[in-house]
Amino acid sequence: MKTLIVVSHPTLDQSQTQQFLKASAATLADATWHHLDTSMPFDASKEQALVRAADRIIFQFPLYWYAAPASLYQWLDEVWVRSVVYDARGGLLTGKSLGLVVNLGQPARGYQVGGAEGVSLSELFSPFAALARKTGLRMLAPLVIDQFSYQDEATHQKLLVAYQQYLTLAHPAKLSEQADWWLDQLADLADLGDQAELVGQTLATRQETLMHLQETINELKEGEED
Amino acid sequence: MKTLIVVSHPTLDQSQTQQFLKASAATLADATWHHLDTSMPFDASKEQALVRAADRIIFQFPLYWYAAPASLYQWLDEVWVRSVVYDARGGLLTGKSLGLVVNLGQPARGYQVGGAEGVSLSELFSPFAALARKTGLRMLAPLVIDQFSYQDEATHQKLLVAYQQYLTLAHPAKLSEQADWWLDQLADLADLGDQAELVGQTLATRQETLMHLQETINELKEGEED
Repeated sequence: MKTLIVVSHPTLDQSQTQQFLKASAATLADATWHHLDTSMPFDASKEQALVRAADRIIFQFPLYWYAAPASLYQWLDEVWVRSVVYDARGGLLTGKSLGLVVNLGQPARGYQVGGAEGVSLSELFSPFAALARKTGLRMLAPLVIDQFSYQDEATHQKLLVAYQQYLTLAHPAKLSEQADWWLDQLADLADLGDQAELVGQTLATRQETLMHLQETINELKEGEED
Repeated sequence: MKTLIVVSHPTLDQSQTQQFLKASAATLADATWHHLDTSMPFDASKEQALVRAADRIIFQFPLYWYAAPASLYQWLDEVWVRSVVYDARGGLLTGKSLGLVVNLGQPARGYQVGGAEGVSLSELFSPFAALARKTGLRMLAPLVIDQFSYQDEATHQKLLVAYQQYLTLAHPAKLSEQADWWLDQLADLADLGDQAELVGQTLATRQETLMHLQETINELKEGEED
């Protein structure tokens, strides 16, 4: 799967979060890092070609005043023109998927009724959901990163994994795809030798057991519904 | 009341709606028309002075991809900086009011569950509501203009009135303030002579009757609640 990471950030070099994400994506052959603020003025047909070549499009940005920075809107207004997006033969975007990777300066728990922000992220992201609906994009649940600089090393490691999975898996929230991803990672670590093979086999066995259990649960559930 | 009309539109001259609104605001001494796209790059302190001088701030824009055009976000990011907005002595915006004047290319009725757009304007505008909440602005219900160029002359006249009231009344949705606005308009038309005076008196009498009726209804309602 080819992924286009559309990054909107006016001061990218100063963002720890974005530098971490950039390094995390750098090892992925099929992920293209595309920073909007340094690609202006936009060449619409060149930008459209980038979108056309991708299977997944990521809008990646810090939340400024409850929305994305200006460059994302400018890019959408100039590049996602109707004549291209609504193509008679199926549209530029139909069948692709859209992900949001959003970092917050405030704690994520503040974004709910009664929270410090008083509004949910789902409400704030509704313009992107409407855009996806209109253009035939399948939307993924957002990957939200809050207060990156306060997070410890273990949390950063988990973020690296979650981000790479978000960029590459058809359904990043599915446990079975996540497990397969780990198996692939281990298979790649050939230089670790016997130990990696052993860990890999154990994981594969556990994954198989997990799938069997899930099937059993599904059968039981079907029984309940009869 | 001093009103700052913050207009975000990349092709203002080509917009019939915006030209109509501009002409409608031109007769109001206390309304300042401020077009963002021709004020870039922004001089932050100059822009902040404009905001500081206003009692009401209007965000006026066409809905592009379910959000405002880029210039509004750029202005917010560069001008509404935290050190100014969250002033220790009360903040730049506390006590002011915020209005949205939004024009749509699609019919407004499409913006609801089951409608062509599948999402409400209230959801789409939630970032602005969150911004108002955070900065101590009182938010007005948006003034929405859909498909201006398909509207007839009578609808345009009504829009002119609604827009002028939106820019100048403390509570544009209140019938009593709207009635007072009409009386003020008639008082200004001194050159119409006796006829204007007669219409004015009739309106004033009706307005008085209306207020009495409303008081009676309120009293009845209070009785119900006992």
